[in-house]
Amino acid sequence: MVKKAKYSASVLVIGDEILSGRTQDTNSNYIAKKMAEIGIDTSEIRVIPDIKEVIIESVNELREKNDYLFTTGGIGPTHDDITAESIALAFGVKIELNESAFSVLKKYYEEIGSPFNEVRQRMARIPVGATLIENPVSKAPGFKIENVFVFAGIPKIMIAMLENSLEFLHKGSIVHSQSVKVDAVEGDIADTLSLMDSEDSDLRIGSYPFFNSKVDFGVNVVIKSVDKDKLSKSVNKFKEFLNKNSLNFD
Amino acid sequence: MVKKAKYSASVLVIGDEILSGRTQDTNSNYIAKKMAEIGIDTSEIRVIPDIKEVIIESVNELREKNDYLFTTGGIGPTHDDITAESIALAFGVKIELNESAFSVLKKYYEEIGSPFNEVRQRMARIPVGATLIENPVSKAPGFKIENVFVFAGIPKIMIAMLENSLEFLHKGSIVHSQSVKVDAVEGDIADTLSLMDSEDSDLRIGSYPFFNSKVDFGVNVVIKSVDKDKLSKSVNKFKEFLNKNSLNFD
Repeated sequence: MVKKAKYSASVLVIGDEILSGRTQDTNSNYIAKKMAEIGIDTSEIRVIPDIKEVIIESVNELREKNDYLFTTGGIGPTHDDITAESIALAFGVKIELNESAFSVLKKYYEEIGSPFNEVRQRMARIPVGATLIENPVSKAPGFKIENVFVFAGIPKIMIAMLENSLEFLHKGSIVHSQSVKVDAVEGDIADTLSLMDSEDSDLRIGSYPFFNSKVDFGVNVVIKSVDKDKLSKSVNKFKEFLNKNSLNFD
Repeated sequence: MVKKAKYSASVLVIGDEILSGRTQDTNSNYIAKKMAEIGIDTSEIRVIPDIKEVIIESVNELREKNDYLFTTGGIGPTHDDITAESIALAFGVKIELNESAFSVLKKYYEEIGSPFNEVRQRMARIPVGATLIENPVSKAPGFKIENVFVFAGIPKIMIAMLENSLEFLHKGSIVHSQSVKVDAVEGDIADTLSLMDSEDSDLRIGSYPFFNSKVDFGVNVVIKSVDKDKLSKSVNKFKEFLNKNSLNFD
């Protein structure tokens, strides 16, 4: 990959349990935050069911569109764990028993005194050409194939796998960010934000209203830039505007 | 729409603040749960940035693929609130000042003694042909156009708009669900689940491992069916298996 100033990532959350509302996905938020820290833009998050054709199509679309794709979920031993198999199909490669994964798992189950049965051995099946990503929690590894990183769905394991993947990622320019909590409604500041946003294309200005009750509401304004000086100048200018208009802020 | 046994929905979360990891989206989980309650399958959740072309493309893809599409976010008064405009473009209709929305907003700002300025009036711009969805919290309405429901991103407002939209939805057959918390790892029960799953296509069996610590781990098995009798038979059969194999469960 050619070194660039900006890299993009997408997240594919695979799992019926998210779509049924049973489980609140937190993995994509964790990944998005981590990417922001290392200067990678998350451009899309998608949640799809445990259906092979849907996984294949989504993986191929998202890996094409973005520098990186992270998938979560569906790499356990049960009948609904079809991610590894679907990834192999998406890449048109075979899926085979990976010797290294097999021996790690065999050792683990011997240690905890649990049978390393056929269904557990399924977790050692990895697409040919993939690089294993270590799972310090329950040993069944994730893997990386080209620009696609395949992680478990259990948050604790996902987080460990993400940590173990950072070395493979190109880091982009860090985007600096400052936020101002304004004691107003969006309509009071929309004009100014719009002007600031149009004046400088290096700035990204977001406005996030909150409405906790009739007395506790306001707007969080988040200003971002890769240029620290521009950022602080812009924040100061915004605060001047707020002062001039007698709008309180933190 | 012809009455069917099953309806599908998708959720499009529009907002840079979710993709940057700044905000954890909870709206899609709320919608998914509500859909499950009324027999509608959520088939996809997608989070995209505040970019007009991306919104248009995603809206047109998802409204085509599913019976219903719910969008959240981007209908406030600021420069990054481009959802209504993008929806109009997706449908190829004009966006105009909606008289009813205008008078509701005007009245509201008069009541709270805040100027109903030009940026606030933007919130009364609604695609032609859309039906307004009431916002009891801050009055700026959502809307429905064909099978697309456009909601605010603030959870409290989104929830109210969803409630006000339920009357428009066809309800599907209710899917009944029972879960069994098993004191085991997936490998101990994977074979049985796989067999149960393949024996009856009316059943949907999910297996969700959790791993809180080395002593607190297990699997939540969720069995679903539109047929209550089949469901309870299946759950009993599974519990028999667990008893026979001395696996504890709740």
